[in-house]
Amino acid sequence: MIPPRTVRERAFAHVADTREMTVNRVIHNGCVGLSNHRKGDSMRPDFGRGDGLIRAIAQDAESRAVLMDAYMNEEAFDETVRTRRVVYFSRTKQKLWRKGEESGNIQLVREIRINCNRDSILLLVEQVGGAACHDGYHSCFYRRFRDDGELEVIEARVFDPAQVYERKGNQ
Amino acid sequence: MIPPRTVRERAFAHVADTREMTVNRVIHNGCVGLSNHRKGDSMRPDFGRGDGLIRAIAQDAESRAVLMDAYMNEEAFDETVRTRRVVYFSRTKQKLWRKGEESGNIQLVREIRINCNRDSILLLVEQVGGAACHDGYHSCFYRRFRDDGELEVIEARVFDPAQVYERKGNQ
Repeated sequence: MIPPRTVRERAFAHVADTREMTVNRVIHNGCVGLSNHRKGDSMRPDFGRGDGLIRAIAQDAESRAVLMDAYMNEEAFDETVRTRRVVYFSRTKQKLWRKGEESGNIQLVREIRINCNRDSILLLVEQVGGAACHDGYHSCFYRRFRDDGELEVIEARVFDPAQVYERKGNQ
Repeated sequence: MIPPRTVRERAFAHVADTREMTVNRVIHNGCVGLSNHRKGDSMRPDFGRGDGLIRAIAQDAESRAVLMDAYMNEEAFDETVRTRRVVYFSRTKQKLWRKGEESGNIQLVREIRINCNRDSILLLVEQVGGAACHDGYHSCFYRRFRDDGELEVIEARVFDPAQVYERKGNQ
C-alpha cells in the first residue's frame, strides 16, 4: 500500500512518472522513515527551497583542500549517487554539468555528507588529474587576501588551461 | 583625479554615499588595478550576481573540517574583513548574522580565499567553542550517507543545543 504523500515527497514528485515510482524511489533513498538522530527528519536533501537547487561543496579526500562549490538539482544529485562521479547543475547553462567532461578531471565520490538544514552537501572526492579549477589549479580557491587587501596566488598550477580546453567550456 | 567607473565599480557603488568614497574604498580594497595573475581581474568578490550575495564556506583552520556554508552580502563581507569575526547574511531573516552572537561560538578569521569566479569565498577560521552547528556538532556536515542510503551521524556532540539556545535563534 502506498502511504499518503508528505509535503517533502511532493517536492520532488515531479521527476517521477508515476506515484508508485516516486514512493519506491523515496523509500529506496531512505526518505520515508525516521533518521537515526531526530524524529521526523528526512534523509533526502531538501530540493524544495532555492529553485530546486542545493549547494554542493567538493573537498579533496586526501589533501582536505576545499576544491570548489557549485549547485545540484535533484537529477544531478541522483546521478552523482548512482554513478559515484560528481555531476553538478550549471545555473548559467541551465543543464547538468558532468564535472571533468571536457578536461578529463572528473571527481570520484568517496563520501557524501549533508548539513543540518539539508540544503547543502559536502562531497569528499578523489580529484582525477589533481586539478578541480578550470584555471588549472588544484582548488578554485587558489588566491587569498593579503593583509593589505591584495590577492595572492597560493598554489602552483597543475595544468595550462590553454592546452586543456579548446574553447572556454565546462570545467 | 577620479578615474571613470568600471562596470564592476558601479556594481557596488550603491553602498557608498559619494563617488569619492566609492573610489577610495575601491582603491583601499585593491579593486582598481591589476591582479597579480590575470590582467583586468578585480580583487573584490563579485556581488553583482546572485542578488548581491556571495557564498561563504567556513573551514576549520586546524581540523580542516568544512564547518558550514552560508551567504554574505557586501556589508557582511566588509565587516568580516574589518573585525576578523565572521558575519554572514541570513537570507531567511534578511539581515546580518553575526555568527555566534547567541551561542558564543564565534568564528575568528585566519585567512580569506576567493574562488576563480569571485562569487564564493573560503574562510579559514578558528571555531570558538569547537562547534559551528546549532545542532551542537563541530561541523554542520555531521551526517553522511551510508551505502544503503541511510544517514549516519559521524561526530560526537560538542554541546546540547537545549542548554545553549533559549529559543531557536541564530547559530
